[in-house]
Amino acid sequence: MTPKEIHLNLFAFGAGHHAAAWRAVEGSVEKLGLISWWEELARTAERGKLDAVFLADGQAINPVGLENGPGWFLEPVTALTAMARATDNIGLISTISSTFWQPFHAARMMASLDHISGGRAGINVVTSMTDAEARNHGMDALPGHDVRYARAAEFIETITALWDSWPAESLVMDRAGKFADASLIESIDHDGEFFQVAGPLNIPSPPQGRPVLFQAGSSPQGREIAAKYAEAIYSVAWDLEQAQDYRSDIHARATAQGREPMPVLPGLVTFVGTTVEEARAKQQALNALLPVKDSLNQLGFFVGQDCSTWDLDAPPPPLPPLEEFSGPKGRYETVLRIIESKSPTVRELLGYLAAGGGHATFIGTPESIADDIECWIDEGGADGFNLMPPILPHSLDDFVDLVVPELQRRGRFRTEYSHTTLRGHLFNQVAYLTQQSGALSTTG
Amino acid sequence: MTPKEIHLNLFAFGAGHHAAAWRAVEGSVEKLGLISWWEELARTAERGKLDAVFLADGQAINPVGLENGPGWFLEPVTALTAMARATDNIGLISTISSTFWQPFHAARMMASLDHISGGRAGINVVTSMTDAEARNHGMDALPGHDVRYARAAEFIETITALWDSWPAESLVMDRAGKFADASLIESIDHDGEFFQVAGPLNIPSPPQGRPVLFQAGSSPQGREIAAKYAEAIYSVAWDLEQAQDYRSDIHARATAQGREPMPVLPGLVTFVGTTVEEARAKQQALNALLPVKDSLNQLGFFVGQDCSTWDLDAPPPPLPPLEEFSGPKGRYETVLRIIESKSPTVRELLGYLAAGGGHATFIGTPESIADDIECWIDEGGADGFNLMPPILPHSLDDFVDLVVPELQRRGRFRTEYSHTTLRGHLFNQVAYLTQQSGALSTTG
Repeated sequence: MTPKEIHLNLFAFGAGHHAAAWRAVEGSVEKLGLISWWEELARTAERGKLDAVFLADGQAINPVGLENGPGWFLEPVTALTAMARATDNIGLISTISSTFWQPFHAARMMASLDHISGGRAGINVVTSMTDAEARNHGMDALPGHDVRYARAAEFIETITALWDSWPAESLVMDRAGKFADASLIESIDHDGEFFQVAGPLNIPSPPQGRPVLFQAGSSPQGREIAAKYAEAIYSVAWDLEQAQDYRSDIHARATAQGREPMPVLPGLVTFVGTTVEEARAKQQALNALLPVKDSLNQLGFFVGQDCSTWDLDAPPPPLPPLEEFSGPKGRYETVLRIIESKSPTVRELLGYLAAGGGHATFIGTPESIADDIECWIDEGGADGFNLMPPILPHSLDDFVDLVVPELQRRGRFRTEYSHTTLRGHLFNQVAYLTQQSGALSTTG
Repeated sequence: MTPKEIHLNLFAFGAGHHAAAWRAVEGSVEKLGLISWWEELARTAERGKLDAVFLADGQAINPVGLENGPGWFLEPVTALTAMARATDNIGLISTISSTFWQPFHAARMMASLDHISGGRAGINVVTSMTDAEARNHGMDALPGHDVRYARAAEFIETITALWDSWPAESLVMDRAGKFADASLIESIDHDGEFFQVAGPLNIPSPPQGRPVLFQAGSSPQGREIAAKYAEAIYSVAWDLEQAQDYRSDIHARATAQGREPMPVLPGLVTFVGTTVEEARAKQQALNALLPVKDSLNQLGFFVGQDCSTWDLDAPPPPLPPLEEFSGPKGRYETVLRIIESKSPTVRELLGYLAAGGGHATFIGTPESIADDIECWIDEGGADGFNLMPPILPHSLDDFVDLVVPELQRRGRFRTEYSHTTLRGHLFNQVAYLTQQSGALSTTG
């Protein structure tokens, strides 16, 4: 039996996912505004034959304060457009907030990215999380959870209808007759609770037909929407058990909707070394750069008590069990799981929280990390991973140069791209337009 | 006295500005979805040392029907991002509708383009024109003229405040201390009639500080806003007299606002040949491809009478003077001016209207066109032109290969770029960030 395909995305974020990455001497914080630096990350990911580069997004400055790190910088659709032209095969996934974007603009920009990349665009629809973002878009505060998810569902329906509204096969381009066969082009006349959009879209359907739809959902409503619409799903899981629980729940919900189970990609932080000690040293070097007071403050918020007097080099004091904790349970459960699984000192705990904050963290040699990856895949915890390098480009280079070849040696990861579209990488689907005349579908 | 500098932009549009360009055997209609084709146009414009590439925009499909030609295709900000990475010096100007965009998104995308291009972004703010566009953005119909212009003014104030809200000099990037000096970063707390935006923007101010602001305005309100805010202006003028009238009016309005007169760039259609006959033959070849019935219908609409029986190869019958015409006067005046200045046959009249539709049209040798350009500049009709090649890339190649060298021989146009930013090309201004530390300001 052929082993299950593994899907790997690069989640590129700032100077790296570790909160102290920008403080590292070897770090790249001065380069965050240079598109050439982002393009090089995409080229490295493509050298590793990864499925896609993924950019998250937020609509306000760093919520923990710009003094503490860069937060957002380049706008993701424009950055990914440049990265598309610096690469040939890798997918390009942009986050778009359904709470703050109008569907016509979003559908159009993503279709344009799909044309420009020759069929490599993906969209990660999120509902956003902060009042600061809402106040940049004409609202006093973030709409409630139910409203945001209802809007997200309508947003997805609307952008999908727009992508289908001007089919590329309508482009007859008959010089003595018609440019397009208007009988194939239809209004969508969407008149919903949140959006009114007549259509059609003013850009023909792109090479993939529709950019690939990603989502992440942890709340019940988020899971329902992900199960109903998403073609691939980002998840958060600290350990295999959490990952299995989430994936089986999402797949059960998808099946209940009459859909095939879709790939689930947990976030994954890796520290890779030629020895375990070297890998741990890389982690400790970043942890040592954390501003201790701020990090203890954040931990105190997560565990609902004052941590400022905790001994950094001792284990944390015993914490009450989850069911006795009255604050937000998600982060608290993560803290408990980290303590249970890693027996960390307080400083190490701060480090795990600072890099990924609850996402799986594999530390070791290329062999041990490949073992961990295989285990999660084969035990039903994941269909791949959304790689969250703690420091960029170094942790990405380590993964591409050391872990990918190990996975390839084991026959678990592609050694060449067999497709030129994201839909091809993920689903072995041939691009939409290349099945047809295709004149407009290939980038030159 | 040094002759006045001439500014030239390429206005790239579909297969070319002539309505029949897409029907030409040698035309490029199959390439409109290929970003490489657009990049090549930008490279050609850069070879000609032009100031910028400009893309117009609309928020609905071709208003005269997709059967009659391509209308819009790639979304302009994404297309210009790719064009930025295919070039080194030329400016990149995107049209943005203040009627349909939220200022936070628009300010952010344009700042991102300015970072990505190393300081070459410009924004052309328009108020849009059709109900079809409004219906794609949650409205039943286009807001009235006064409302659109009031919103445009508030939009410009808001995006400008956002560009200023996170100054690049706040980026201290002290690895042992702060990433940014938060005391230099300020909310804008805009609470206006059309927009509520707290700010700051989530991208630091780009290399130019602010992308260059273009506008076009022909109505009294449009002229007032252009005079108050625009740093450069697009205009429409069929002949030198119209151009002089517009430019002197705008400059008087700017002076009344306490501003320096800004460059005014009329649209310009050129047919260039080694002889006048060759140039005319290029025009006639495109005119011959016009669908006569549709064109006569359109003409009938402009002149308020049935033209379907007019003899194509004879002069048009006499038309009543402007003051006796009760329909929309703008287009009618253009028709009268074309007839008066060119004594065209009906077919030739249709051709002038089909390429530019009222914009200046220079037909001749490189020498005669350079003469015309110099005349308009020196007689106060223009500070440069927004070039509208009737067929792409051919008419652009002709201009760059034949007219630009003639202007350069006469010492009237740059032979090398002396700046790397659009603000540099237009105003000899040094880029904002390169006056400072500059680590974030240069593309690699």
